[in-house]
Amino acid sequence: MRELFHQQMNRLNDTIVLEAKAVAKAMNRASIAMRDANLAKAEKVIDADRKIDLLERSIDEMGVSILARQAPVASDLRVVVSALRLSAILEQMGDLARHIAYVARSRYPHVVLPDTALGVLVQMTEHAGAMSENMVRLLETRDLQFANAIEEEDDYLDDLHEKTFEYVLDDELDLTRQEIIDIILLGRYLERFGDHAVSVAQRVQFMVNGMQDPGDPFADVDLTEI
Amino acid sequence: MRELFHQQMNRLNDTIVLEAKAVAKAMNRASIAMRDANLAKAEKVIDADRKIDLLERSIDEMGVSILARQAPVASDLRVVVSALRLSAILEQMGDLARHIAYVARSRYPHVVLPDTALGVLVQMTEHAGAMSENMVRLLETRDLQFANAIEEEDDYLDDLHEKTFEYVLDDELDLTRQEIIDIILLGRYLERFGDHAVSVAQRVQFMVNGMQDPGDPFADVDLTEI
Repeated sequence: MRELFHQQMNRLNDTIVLEAKAVAKAMNRASIAMRDANLAKAEKVIDADRKIDLLERSIDEMGVSILARQAPVASDLRVVVSALRLSAILEQMGDLARHIAYVARSRYPHVVLPDTALGVLVQMTEHAGAMSENMVRLLETRDLQFANAIEEEDDYLDDLHEKTFEYVLDDELDLTRQEIIDIILLGRYLERFGDHAVSVAQRVQFMVNGMQDPGDPFADVDLTEI
Repeated sequence: MRELFHQQMNRLNDTIVLEAKAVAKAMNRASIAMRDANLAKAEKVIDADRKIDLLERSIDEMGVSILARQAPVASDLRVVVSALRLSAILEQMGDLARHIAYVARSRYPHVVLPDTALGVLVQMTEHAGAMSENMVRLLETRDLQFANAIEEEDDYLDDLHEKTFEYVLDDELDLTRQEIIDIILLGRYLERFGDHAVSVAQRVQFMVNGMQDPGDPFADVDLTEI
């Protein structure tokens, strides 16, 4: 029973790492798809998203199965509950990479944006790619230096996101309305991707360091007021 | 022990309903804040978001506490696992309502957009408000007619979202770049809000109808390929 339990916990972890790797690969491919108007890469991101969705579902089923049959407690329970949360965050990250690939595909054979704007967004995708690779390492090793690296990268991403607004608001720069739409949406997707990576980092910190004792969690919600 | 267990399960459900009510109130207030440049309503949405975050955390702690101490199985386990997922989706919906309130506040004392664009976005907020009220009723009653109503409303929301793009792409219409940014971002927030409401509806359907037996969830993931 304990042997099976450990096998299942390991398999749960491996599957989360696999989902994170699929997300990292999707973001790296989406970056190239956007930068080079590379249709094949865009298609791969879009196809691979179904795989990420399946991995999410597998993780959820594994998690529920472990809860039902093994009734884990303490740190094992924390890992299982975190897995359920992580699988959902990673799935949303996969969707965001797919949105970027859609935009790249819709403008093929042209690149989606003029040079300057494209440059800022490509930089954003590269930081997003680096964040997702740190996320894979964090999930593989549980070494919290990778959580810190993710949070630092997110600051760069936010700075670049600010730049996209400055760029759009500069009336000197000639942009079509479609280009403005693309800059704003791509910027938003990438900002959200970064936020989700930070959520993953925080979840793993919680998983490693444990939760603070919530006392009696049923005591402190006032159900009469909203 | 069983008595305590039922009390805790009821309290978990009540707290999810409370979080959903807070989200519905936030969206209704964000709608008025945007429509009327109503600063007080915008501030209330922004303040209430902290409350929604606290409710999310309470639900998570309650869920983990029930899993650790009661080791629920079958439909009770499904409800607890769903609660953990629902609390996170609702929290993201609260963030989106807050983003809308931020935009409204940032343009005060002016309304954020010229009449026609504002009209479409106000309609979107009203559908989003209706969806979140159906979500409250769904969580209170578990009557799946409210899940269907949410999915229907989402189609209206998507149609209106399409309209915002047509509007921006119509070069005849005079829009500043800031206005274009606002239309695109507000449209995106509201589209996402609708998607999340649909996820809630699907989660409750799963909770009510049960999961399909996944067989052995550990058997069918190929960990070698991504």
